[in-house]
Amino acid sequence: MPFTPSEIDEEKAHFANVITAFQQYAPYALTANNRRRKDFYTLSRADQDLLDDLGYKEKLAEADRAILMNATFLNQIVANPEIFGHEVDADDEQGPQQELPVAQSERHVHGHPYAQHSHGKHIHTHSHSTPADKSTNNDASVSHPKAKRYRPTDFDMDKLRSTLKQFVRDWSEEGRTEREVSYGPMKDALLNHFSGIPREERANFRVLVPGSGLGRLAWDVANLGFACQGNEFSHYMLLPSFFILNRTDAIESHTVYPYVHSFSNLPNNAAMLRPISIPDVLPSALPEGSDFSLVAGDFEEIYGAEDSPEEPQSGQWDAVLTCFFIDTAKNIVNYLRIIHRILAPGGVWINLGPLLWHFENNSTNDPSIELNIEEVKALARKIGFEISHERTIDTTYTNNAQSMLGYVYHAAFWTATKTV
Amino acid sequence: MPFTPSEIDEEKAHFANVITAFQQYAPYALTANNRRRKDFYTLSRADQDLLDDLGYKEKLAEADRAILMNATFLNQIVANPEIFGHEVDADDEQGPQQELPVAQSERHVHGHPYAQHSHGKHIHTHSHSTPADKSTNNDASVSHPKAKRYRPTDFDMDKLRSTLKQFVRDWSEEGRTEREVSYGPMKDALLNHFSGIPREERANFRVLVPGSGLGRLAWDVANLGFACQGNEFSHYMLLPSFFILNRTDAIESHTVYPYVHSFSNLPNNAAMLRPISIPDVLPSALPEGSDFSLVAGDFEEIYGAEDSPEEPQSGQWDAVLTCFFIDTAKNIVNYLRIIHRILAPGGVWINLGPLLWHFENNSTNDPSIELNIEEVKALARKIGFEISHERTIDTTYTNNAQSMLGYVYHAAFWTATKTV
Repeated sequence: MPFTPSEIDEEKAHFANVITAFQQYAPYALTANNRRRKDFYTLSRADQDLLDDLGYKEKLAEADRAILMNATFLNQIVANPEIFGHEVDADDEQGPQQELPVAQSERHVHGHPYAQHSHGKHIHTHSHSTPADKSTNNDASVSHPKAKRYRPTDFDMDKLRSTLKQFVRDWSEEGRTEREVSYGPMKDALLNHFSGIPREERANFRVLVPGSGLGRLAWDVANLGFACQGNEFSHYMLLPSFFILNRTDAIESHTVYPYVHSFSNLPNNAAMLRPISIPDVLPSALPEGSDFSLVAGDFEEIYGAEDSPEEPQSGQWDAVLTCFFIDTAKNIVNYLRIIHRILAPGGVWINLGPLLWHFENNSTNDPSIELNIEEVKALARKIGFEISHERTIDTTYTNNAQSMLGYVYHAAFWTATKTV
Repeated sequence: MPFTPSEIDEEKAHFANVITAFQQYAPYALTANNRRRKDFYTLSRADQDLLDDLGYKEKLAEADRAILMNATFLNQIVANPEIFGHEVDADDEQGPQQELPVAQSERHVHGHPYAQHSHGKHIHTHSHSTPADKSTNNDASVSHPKAKRYRPTDFDMDKLRSTLKQFVRDWSEEGRTEREVSYGPMKDALLNHFSGIPREERANFRVLVPGSGLGRLAWDVANLGFACQGNEFSHYMLLPSFFILNRTDAIESHTVYPYVHSFSNLPNNAAMLRPISIPDVLPSALPEGSDFSLVAGDFEEIYGAEDSPEEPQSGQWDAVLTCFFIDTAKNIVNYLRIIHRILAPGGVWINLGPLLWHFENNSTNDPSIELNIEEVKALARKIGFEISHERTIDTTYTNNAQSMLGYVYHAAFWTATKTV
């Protein structure tokens, strides 16, 4: 379905605003930290002296330095936005699916403007990092690209902070345990489903990972030898995905400080100021001939569209892996119908996640259907899945492992095969 | 310190607004649930039929019924607001401390208008139930009592939902484990500190519980035989405290549905719709001659004020128990100085809690000093405490035990004795 000129303008404006948010991170975060400094100077001299003896002012200075290191990294991500297509001439009437061949020559990137046409409500994100997301999503806004420079909102900055934490989850040694607990069982289930297939033939089987975030699960699946496609909606994930997958040439070549933004619930300074090195593996080191791609855009628009000869989806996928994804649905019935329809007969859907319905209590007038786990499974059976290997997996999701406040998701895991 | 007429007017207006929030709970919560019903009818007929087969519409009807049960309870709490003094003639020039003798004859209640003069920023609350609190506190507002009827905000309703969950923590069988994990070690430490004192002499020792919430820890301490005073700031805690302590005459005489407000992260309907009976004990059943009181108002104003002959505080307390309280400080130095000053020589401060600094990122222009645990302890030593029995206690705080998202605080515990 082609986009209207006004939709394309809106999309370009949103993209420009996200770039601005990345660029404005440093002044925004430094201002927040400087407020603490101002608060300090409102205290009595005696109180200031006591706190100074504890090293409070030096702590604020260290936070400033960590923020500047984060800014260096975030600015690199958006240093050349023209490679994403918005500054180059392109056919604006293309469909919603823009495929990015990953770890290939740059010619392909220019040929397929990346993330150009992802479309929809921009609050639609798969982040599970902060429950507060839902209550603040009314801050999301879109400005015209020709209007005065966009001023990033608290909501935008919360997204950026989530991006930094997502790097820990997907591309750091620190995130290894979290990945082993969540991605591990999903990959095991995939290998189990295709256990009769020799490794060298896995490339004949197509695996889709909707809500692929920074891309690690999809990359891992490609690394196992399957043909794998990630799909992601948020520019706050897509821009960093591109950077880490295509512009990073050494292990642990970047350092970020994902925990510097909150001074709450900390046992000590190290819990806040510890650096995280990324990446833990070389993203470009996929085996020769790997088939790995990322597609930018809305899951329902891309995979739920009527089949066209150029973009057939029905029955085209041998496996769909949803990790912390299905609760991004406004209407879960539609999500499950699409997953069922695009799977080949006997194809497998592997799910792990909670049900933090992203549109519950939304202020954007979107509908929201909110089922519990029993209902989701009953719905899946009605739609034509046979569910097995049901269990609960306790797992974290991007939180600071050294915080005094621990979040643990009792996430639902299952494999489901298409039966009808 | 007497209050100005405008401060008294503001306080009366705030009190009236809280009463209105209690009264408006039903229409507010029913409207939120009805939105789900409207969303349902936007779906295709086929999707509606599928969801109807799962019992989705019946689930919405059950949520309505649970909300109405909650409303019955909340309306009882504010059925007679005049007993709190705002509708009766009283001396408006009294000091900030308004003592409420608990479980005594009503004559005393009328003589000491309860919660009349609690004062300060109304967002100052000790609730740890939702991290989102901090991001939404700019919704707090105060209207004039003679203006048109106050329209409760999302922030007000979040407070009410927290109140219902707090009842589970403090006054239900369901909350027993949480109390044993958190209040248990604090009471043990208190008994240990006074182990040389015969039980019948405990009434000579005065224990203060700042941030007493719905009053259970303070009540438990009084039940052990100590003279105990709770102090609480929030009307959302004070009104229900009064109701449960003075207007409840049978165990499990009330039923609430604290988990009906969110449809997210639920394994099944029972996790959302299960009733909680309160209270688990008879609050009026304190031993004959117990000395138990609650004081409404701001901790720093009441206990940090210059000593007056009528209200001496310095050195007047033998123990101070802070449970999930110290992070409500704007300036933790002042909190610790006050605790130190009001303790008698050799007195004990027993602490349990995280450091979710309530004023971090506030939008009310309040200062906020945010230390980590190491710094808080170092500060306490500088101020004149000797710290012992330091350990970490893993504990929940009012969350739905059946949710797929579990929060666990790795809370800091210590006892500290006043040395200088």
